[in-house]
Amino acid sequence: MEVSFKAISPSEFFYKNRDIAGFSSPARSLYMAIRELVENALDAAEAGRILPDVFVELVEEDGEKNVYRLRVVDNGVGVPGDKIPSAFATVLYGSKYGFKQSRGTFGLGGTMAILYGQITTNKPARVMSSTDGKTMYVYDLMIDVVENKPRIISSEKKPSPNGWRGTSVEFSLEADYPGSRAKILDYFKHTAVVNPHATLTFIDSRGRLYHYPRTVEKPPEPPVETLPHPVGVDVEMMTRMLNETKARNLASFLTTSFQQIGDKTAKEVLELAGLRPDQSPKKLDHDQVTALVNAFKRYGKFRAPDPKPLSPVGREFLEAGIRSIFNPDFVFVVERKASSYSGHPFIVEAAIAYGGLIPATETFQLYRFANKIPLLYDERADVAWKVVEEKIDWSNYKVPKPAPLAVFTSICSTKIPYKTVGKEAISDRPELERELTMALRECGRNLKLYLSRIEKREAAAKRLSLYTKYLPMIAEFAAKAADMRKPDIRPLLKKMGIQEIEQKASASEEQDREAG
Amino acid sequence: MEVSFKAISPSEFFYKNRDIAGFSSPARSLYMAIRELVENALDAAEAGRILPDVFVELVEEDGEKNVYRLRVVDNGVGVPGDKIPSAFATVLYGSKYGFKQSRGTFGLGGTMAILYGQITTNKPARVMSSTDGKTMYVYDLMIDVVENKPRIISSEKKPSPNGWRGTSVEFSLEADYPGSRAKILDYFKHTAVVNPHATLTFIDSRGRLYHYPRTVEKPPEPPVETLPHPVGVDVEMMTRMLNETKARNLASFLTTSFQQIGDKTAKEVLELAGLRPDQSPKKLDHDQVTALVNAFKRYGKFRAPDPKPLSPVGREFLEAGIRSIFNPDFVFVVERKASSYSGHPFIVEAAIAYGGLIPATETFQLYRFANKIPLLYDERADVAWKVVEEKIDWSNYKVPKPAPLAVFTSICSTKIPYKTVGKEAISDRPELERELTMALRECGRNLKLYLSRIEKREAAAKRLSLYTKYLPMIAEFAAKAADMRKPDIRPLLKKMGIQEIEQKASASEEQDREAG
Repeated sequence: MEVSFKAISPSEFFYKNRDIAGFSSPARSLYMAIRELVENALDAAEAGRILPDVFVELVEEDGEKNVYRLRVVDNGVGVPGDKIPSAFATVLYGSKYGFKQSRGTFGLGGTMAILYGQITTNKPARVMSSTDGKTMYVYDLMIDVVENKPRIISSEKKPSPNGWRGTSVEFSLEADYPGSRAKILDYFKHTAVVNPHATLTFIDSRGRLYHYPRTVEKPPEPPVETLPHPVGVDVEMMTRMLNETKARNLASFLTTSFQQIGDKTAKEVLELAGLRPDQSPKKLDHDQVTALVNAFKRYGKFRAPDPKPLSPVGREFLEAGIRSIFNPDFVFVVERKASSYSGHPFIVEAAIAYGGLIPATETFQLYRFANKIPLLYDERADVAWKVVEEKIDWSNYKVPKPAPLAVFTSICSTKIPYKTVGKEAISDRPELERELTMALRECGRNLKLYLSRIEKREAAAKRLSLYTKYLPMIAEFAAKAADMRKPDIRPLLKKMGIQEIEQKASASEEQDREAG
Repeated sequence: MEVSFKAISPSEFFYKNRDIAGFSSPARSLYMAIRELVENALDAAEAGRILPDVFVELVEEDGEKNVYRLRVVDNGVGVPGDKIPSAFATVLYGSKYGFKQSRGTFGLGGTMAILYGQITTNKPARVMSSTDGKTMYVYDLMIDVVENKPRIISSEKKPSPNGWRGTSVEFSLEADYPGSRAKILDYFKHTAVVNPHATLTFIDSRGRLYHYPRTVEKPPEPPVETLPHPVGVDVEMMTRMLNETKARNLASFLTTSFQQIGDKTAKEVLELAGLRPDQSPKKLDHDQVTALVNAFKRYGKFRAPDPKPLSPVGREFLEAGIRSIFNPDFVFVVERKASSYSGHPFIVEAAIAYGGLIPATETFQLYRFANKIPLLYDERADVAWKVVEEKIDWSNYKVPKPAPLAVFTSICSTKIPYKTVGKEAISDRPELERELTMALRECGRNLKLYLSRIEKREAAAKRLSLYTKYLPMIAEFAAKAADMRKPDIRPLLKKMGIQEIEQKASASEEQDREAG
């Protein structure tokens, strides 16, 4: 009957429950380790407006079964020497906790990968980084799981070779490369599609090289950190912001701490909360803080969150990427305007491709992206699957069964509402669901136009083939019956507009390609 | 280009990412809060071999929109007074970190529910508990999110009313009851099915009473804490166990610290690791620890983990539960023998029900349970969905489309490999997949027998109806033609065995019902 209680550290928690961070089987764990490090690498380059160069190498460890050494090198902004141990060997320590768009969101992935390597191989990780291209720091690190602290095995400071700036992470892990190879290669291919400004290089354990050079020479705008939007602010956050503000009165606290609040809005909100604009932010009591938060909820007239910090893939890039992989007969891309959920701005992009290399199936192929990373697992738990499967009736858009149909969805946000720490499935927030539905319906309507044209063209072609088959016979028969010479039927066919129909059909297909 | 780093506490992490613990929308958050507290309540009763009595009450808060007060009271072992603040207001502090079967697994749910209530309403939670039926402690608590520490608003010690022992948790939260009512009622209904020894009472915000009295008066065996199984032990765990052991030499360390290791096995494993049985466990170096863990992995002859700590639902209970809800025409339940993954024992139970109140659909209804709790969200991300959808070809078992088919799966384990902190989807470990597949195939074969009998019976009935329709006419016609009296055809029908076939068909259906 005795129950014992104890506290555990965050690294102990994730050590005991690595399934929830996606580190389940040796196959999936390798995939996770690669993607977490590649995403950190891309973020690190973009933080400095650098065109990313990411190099990934996987080597089998000598004489050990199912043990590999993984190395990921980037040319990003680097991690300062004194921050390296904590950044890579402390769970819940990182640079990803601000209000900006980034691939990493939990500040957990890189350390989780290293932790997984440590508990499966008992070897330290080697982290090298330079922030200035002159000095490089080299650490051998392990994680003290109970204390959630780095254990520094060795450290060294030396000149950076060839002026290299960036970060290199290298460690051993139990893995199943044959079992995860397909997913890993898909991951690189699809990451290249939505990051045309990045060069990705992967050398696998058999020495095969997969190289995706950049096709665009301009780095995207670096992600901007923004002020929080008033919708979605809860009491906890409000209390902290009130404690930290330098504003002397509530009116200036509101206008300087939140986006989309000007003087007029501040005045109205404070009135709604029963507070005076000249009150000190530091002196609100518990009930007044609650009143202010409730006023934010009830106000209802805030402008939507500023979408400036968002960096969507872009219609041209998405379409070019889809064409390069599937060479489809038809593509249509939609980029929705910025929207928001709980104060976080987001933009939905969606595309439909049809034909080409897309295999015909009873259902559809779904390709999902979030903040420019492909999501390859757990698709059936994702909001996009729900929309494509349940909200869209594809038969309305004349999609036959089976059909060579591929659906693409991309969401970018300062906060992607992932369902899992493994960042594979996005939660079905109603706002996201609505935007995805609208985008895909628009794609669907355009697909329907295309399919209708195809249908018309096929009908015309069928009619033409009927006429061209029987008209000469009728002509011949009639000529014989009347004992006349067989007439030239080409003017007749022309008169019936058959050629015209045929030409129209091809022309409209051309238009389609342009519109797509 | 400047990147700022910081550490965050576990409560801050879950505060920022409550979607990953299932607290996303106000509807789902209410469902999560209820289930987390009910599961803690059931665990608390079973820890003391007490027949659980769980009382849940939901009340709308006066004058506040979408704010409810939730109260969950149990008759379990209670939480000692000095542990209450940490147990309910510290993230990653709890009693659920041992090797035993329990509904809670992350030590997170109760505190997450209270944290969600706090950030949406800014009100403290009230926790009352008595471990002895004499003294009761009453606390009003809030959570210091930044520090991950309890803030005690008030505390009191007083006599327990009417000798009550147990725990009561009460707090306010933003919620959408109309939006979650169906799931919440399903949750109570299905929890009652697999916990026939528990009495569950729910009074909702409109004063409606849902009462599920226990139907079994015997509490299940309390969950037993076991030693870890050698398979699945990693370096981290081995290092800790070596540090904590009181054994003087490695041989006795192995036999006293792990299950399924006797003297002979210990000797063989140590030989494989290149270690001597008389070496001190405290003096192994890094490479020797690694060698020992690798020897565990390579040994390959350990007996399977002890299934004694497991407490499956049981065939009779599962069948009785299914009959009470669906009143089906056919049920078949399979309980597999204990199996294991990564050193954790588990038992799979599965059932198929057909007809009755089950609605006929193109696909199937799936009901999932894990450690005697129903899983109601994210079914498509679950291993059971994968098996039912992809691994089983239902047409092999003569299942028509549409069909009134319901599939039930129940997994119990000392560690359920959930994919999410919200405990909704179970990861597709190959061992689980295999056991589920075997169990469902056995169910499928029995369903096929049943459906074949139905088919035969229908064919017989059809033949009978043909004969009974035409034989009298033939008899009459023949009699008229021969100018004779119309004969009695009943002996003829009897001779043709038509009644016999009819009887046989009903008899085999009876047998089925007994077998099911």
